[in-house]
Amino acid sequence: MRLAKLREQVLEANLDLVQRGLVLATFGNASGVARKEGLIVIKPSGVPYDRMRPKDLVVTDLQGQIVEGTLRPSSDLLTHAALYRAFPAVGGIAHTHSEYATAWAQARRPIPCFGTTHADYFHGAIPLTEVMTDDEVDGEYEANTGAVIIRACKGLDPMAIPAVLVANHGPFAWGADAREAAENAWMLEAAARMAYLTVAINADAKALGRMLHNRHFLRKHGAKAYYGQKKREK
Amino acid sequence: MRLAKLREQVLEANLDLVQRGLVLATFGNASGVARKEGLIVIKPSGVPYDRMRPKDLVVTDLQGQIVEGTLRPSSDLLTHAALYRAFPAVGGIAHTHSEYATAWAQARRPIPCFGTTHADYFHGAIPLTEVMTDDEVDGEYEANTGAVIIRACKGLDPMAIPAVLVANHGPFAWGADAREAAENAWMLEAAARMAYLTVAINADAKALGRMLHNRHFLRKHGAKAYYGQKKREK
Amino acid sequence: MRLAKLREQVLEANLDLVQRGLVLATFGNASGVARKEGLIVIKPSGVPYDRMRPKDLVVTDLQGQIVEGTLRPSSDLLTHAALYRAFPAVGGIAHTHSEYATAWAQARRPIPCFGTTHADYFHGAIPLTEVMTDDEVDGEYEANTGAVIIRACKGLDPMAIPAVLVANHGPFAWGADAREAAENAWMLEAAARMAYLTVAINADAKALGRMLHNRHFLRKHGAKAYYGQKKREK
Amino acid sequence: MRLAKLREQVLEANLDLVQRGLVLATFGNASGVARKEGLIVIKPSGVPYDRMRPKDLVVTDLQGQIVEGTLRPSSDLLTHAALYRAFPAVGGIAHTHSEYATAWAQARRPIPCFGTTHADYFHGAIPLTEVMTDDEVDGEYEANTGAVIIRACKGLDPMAIPAVLVANHGPFAWGADAREAAENAWMLEAAARMAYLTVAINADAKALGRMLHNRHFLRKHGAKAYYGQKKREK
Repeated sequence: MRLAKLREQVLEANLDLVQRGLVLATFGNASGVARKEGLIVIKPSGVPYDRMRPKDLVVTDLQGQIVEGTLRPSSDLLTHAALYRAFPAVGGIAHTHSEYATAWAQARRPIPCFGTTHADYFHGAIPLTEVMTDDEVDGEYEANTGAVIIRACKGLDPMAIPAVLVANHGPFAWGADAREAAENAWMLEAAARMAYLTVAINADAKALGRMLHNRHFLRKHGAKAYYGQKKREK
Repeated sequence: MRLAKLREQVLEANLDLVQRGLVLATFGNASGVARKEGLIVIKPSGVPYDRMRPKDLVVTDLQGQIVEGTLRPSSDLLTHAALYRAFPAVGGIAHTHSEYATAWAQARRPIPCFGTTHADYFHGAIPLTEVMTDDEVDGEYEANTGAVIIRACKGLDPMAIPAVLVANHGPFAWGADAREAAENAWMLEAAARMAYLTVAINADAKALGRMLHNRHFLRKHGAKAYYGQKKREK
Repeated sequence: MRLAKLREQVLEANLDLVQRGLVLATFGNASGVARKEGLIVIKPSGVPYDRMRPKDLVVTDLQGQIVEGTLRPSSDLLTHAALYRAFPAVGGIAHTHSEYATAWAQARRPIPCFGTTHADYFHGAIPLTEVMTDDEVDGEYEANTGAVIIRACKGLDPMAIPAVLVANHGPFAWGADAREAAENAWMLEAAARMAYLTVAINADAKALGRMLHNRHFLRKHGAKAYYGQKKREK
Repeated sequence: MRLAKLREQVLEANLDLVQRGLVLATFGNASGVARKEGLIVIKPSGVPYDRMRPKDLVVTDLQGQIVEGTLRPSSDLLTHAALYRAFPAVGGIAHTHSEYATAWAQARRPIPCFGTTHADYFHGAIPLTEVMTDDEVDGEYEANTGAVIIRACKGLDPMAIPAVLVANHGPFAWGADAREAAENAWMLEAAARMAYLTVAINADAKALGRMLHNRHFLRKHGAKAYYGQKKREK
C-alpha cells in the first residue's frame, strides 16, 4: 500500500473513533502498518481532531523510530509498535478510552462473551492484562504496555479475538487494517456496554456455550461464512 | 396486499428500527407476510441501510425458498418463516439487538411486567427461550431458533404478548404488520430499559397485579378500548 | 385567564414535555385550569404531538364533563380533575412516563432527597402512592388514581412538594400553571436519575439533613428567596 | 489581564459548561480572577445562558463585595471568593450539578482513581467534604461551603487535584483560568461516570497503583511532560 493512501486511511480511522463517540477529549489513537515497507503511520499526540491532516500523521519504523513527520507521535506509539512486531497479521490498531470498555479495564475484569453480538466479532472473552508492576511502569512504560498485552493474548489467535483490556487503563483493538481496527473498537464498546447491563440484571450470568459461539463467529468469518452479500476474506 | 406495497412497508419498518436506535451495525431485520399469496418479504443480509431500496428486499415462500430477488436474504430468514407458519395472526416480524432487551436475553431473564407502560403493550412478562442445545445450534440453527421461540410462547396469545427474548441472543417482536412489529420492538426496548432501572433500584421489585395489568392492556386493546381517538381493531 | 390563552399555554406545556424527552410514544399529558371559570383544558388522547393544535385541546368542567371539543380527552382526565378539586393552589398538571421517575414508581420506592438539586425544587422526598386495590382498579380507575395520589400527599403542602409517584405507573407533577408543571416534571426526572445513581454508588446513602433542605428550598422559594434576579411570588 | 478580556473568558467558560452537558437548568456557574487587580468576575444568578452577555457578568473584590454590575451575582459567589483567597494559584472556578459527579457527592463517597483517564487530570482521589453542620448551613452558608472545601483539600496540592465534591451538593473544579476550570469540570464528570461503571462491574475494584498514577499525571504535567506537542507550563 502506498504510504499516501495509508496516511488517509489512518486519518479516517482516527476520525471514525471520534464520530463513534469512543474518544474522550484526545484520549484515542489509531495507526496502520505498511508491512512490505516496515512502516507505521500513527496519529500525532494531542492534536485537535478537527484540524488534523494526512501530513500531520507521523511515520516510524517498526521499532518506533521516526522516519517522517515533524510532530511528536502519539505517546502510545511504542505500544502499537510492539503489537505490530508480535502479531504479523495485524494491519491496524486502535486505542480508545471508550467508557464501558474502560470501566471493565478499571474493574479488572475480562469481558465474558454473553451473547451472539459479542460472538459475531470476538471469538471468546476479551482478555485482561495483568496489573503492571512498578518496575514495568517506571521503565519503558509504553513498550511494557505492549509486553503485558502480548502476554495476555498468549495462546489466543489475535485475529479471532482482536481486542484486549489493559488493566486500569483501557482497550486496544486491532484488525486487518486501521478501518477494521476502528470498527472492532466500536463493537468492543457495544459488547462491553451490553455485558455491563447483563451482569447488572443477573450477577451470575453465564457465558455463551462454545457451540453457539462458534456458530455465530463462523457465520461471519472464515471459509463457510454465510452472512452478508459475499464472503469476507481474512 | 400487493407485493410492491408490502416491499415498501417492510423497507420502512427496517429503517424505523434504525431511526429508533434499535439496530447496532447491521444487527437487525424486519419482514412482512402476504398471507393470501403465502409470500414473505424480508431484508437482504448485511446491506447498508442508507442504500437499501424496495427492490433489494428478498421475497420467499413460507418455507423460506427464494421466489424473487438476487441478494442473499437476512441470515435469520428461517426464524421468521417458522414464526409465520406457527402464528397465523402475525403479519410482520422485527428482530434487533437493541441493548436493554438484549441484556435481559443475555442475563437469561424474562422481563417482568413492572408497570403500566409495559402493560399497555404486552399482556404479561416477555418470555425467554430455553438455551439452545448443541444439537439445535449445530443443526438447522435459524429454523431451530424459531422452534425454541414457539416453545417459549406455548400457551400464550402471540398477539397479546408480541415479543420474546432468545437466550444469549436478543429479542424478536411481531405484530399485525411490519410497521406494528417495529413499534413493538421499540416499546419492548423501552420496557426492558425501565425494568432494568427498576431492579437496580429495588432488587425485589414486584410485578404488576393482574387486575391493573388487564385494565391497562384492555384500555388500548380489544372491544372496550377507550384510549386514543378510535378503537383499534385487532 | 382567557380560555384561548390557556389553550396555548397547555399546548406549549405538552410540547415541552416532549422536547425535554419526558414522553415515551404518546404516554404523557399536561393540563391547566381556569379557576374562575371552573374549566380544565387538557390534551386529547393519543393524538400525535406534531399535529396538535390549540383547538384540538378538550375543555371540561372540574368534574371532567366535556364543555368544548370534539376529540376524546386524555384517558387520565379524571385523575387531573380529582387533583384540581383537592389542591386549590394547583394551576397545571403534567403526567409522564419519564424513565427514571417511572422506574422509582415501578420499584415502589419514594425518591429520597439526596441533594440540593432535589431540595431546590421539592421540599422533601417524592411520595409514593399505595398500590391500588383490585376494587380501585376495576372501578373508576382514573378517578381512583386521583384518590390514591391525594392520600399519598396527605399532610404535605402540594406546592412545596409538587410531584408524586403512582406505584407501578409513573409520576404526576404540578405547579402554579401548566408551564411550571412541565418544569417540575422535568426536574423530578433529573432528581430521579441522580437518586438512582446515588443508590447505585452507595446503597446506604442518607437523605439530606433538614437544615440544608430548608436552606436550599428557601433560597429559591418564599419571602426570603435570594436566587435569581427577582423573587418568585408563589 | 484586562477586565474586558476576563469577562469574555468567564462568559465562554460558562457557555462551555452548558455545551458539555454539565449544567442542569441554571445549576452551574464559572468565575475567573484578576489577581493583580484583586477582582473576581462571576456569572449572574439565574439568567438564561442564551441571553448572557459579557456586560451581564458581575465584578467583585476578593471578599465578594460588588464592584461593577447591576445584576445579582451567582448565589455561590462567596464560595468562589473563599477558594480564591485560600488557593493563590487558582485562576478560575467552575461549579456544576453534573450528574455523575453529583451522584458521588450525594452518595458521600470520594471518587477513587480507578484508571489512567482519571490520573491524567487528577493526581489522586477526588476528595469529599464533610457534611455541613446545621450551624454552618444556618449561618453564612455559601462562605461556609468554601470553608468545608478548604478543609477537605487540606494537605493536597489544589493544582494537582483541581476538584472536590461537596457532600449532598455537587462538584467544584478549578484551574489556572476559567477555561481550564471548565475543562476540569468536564473531565471530572467523565472520571465520575467511569468510576460509577467500575464499581457497578466490580464492587471491590481497586484504585490505581501510585507508580502508574504518577507516570500518567507526570506524562501530561510538570517539567518532564511528554504528551501533546509542547509542554504545558503550570
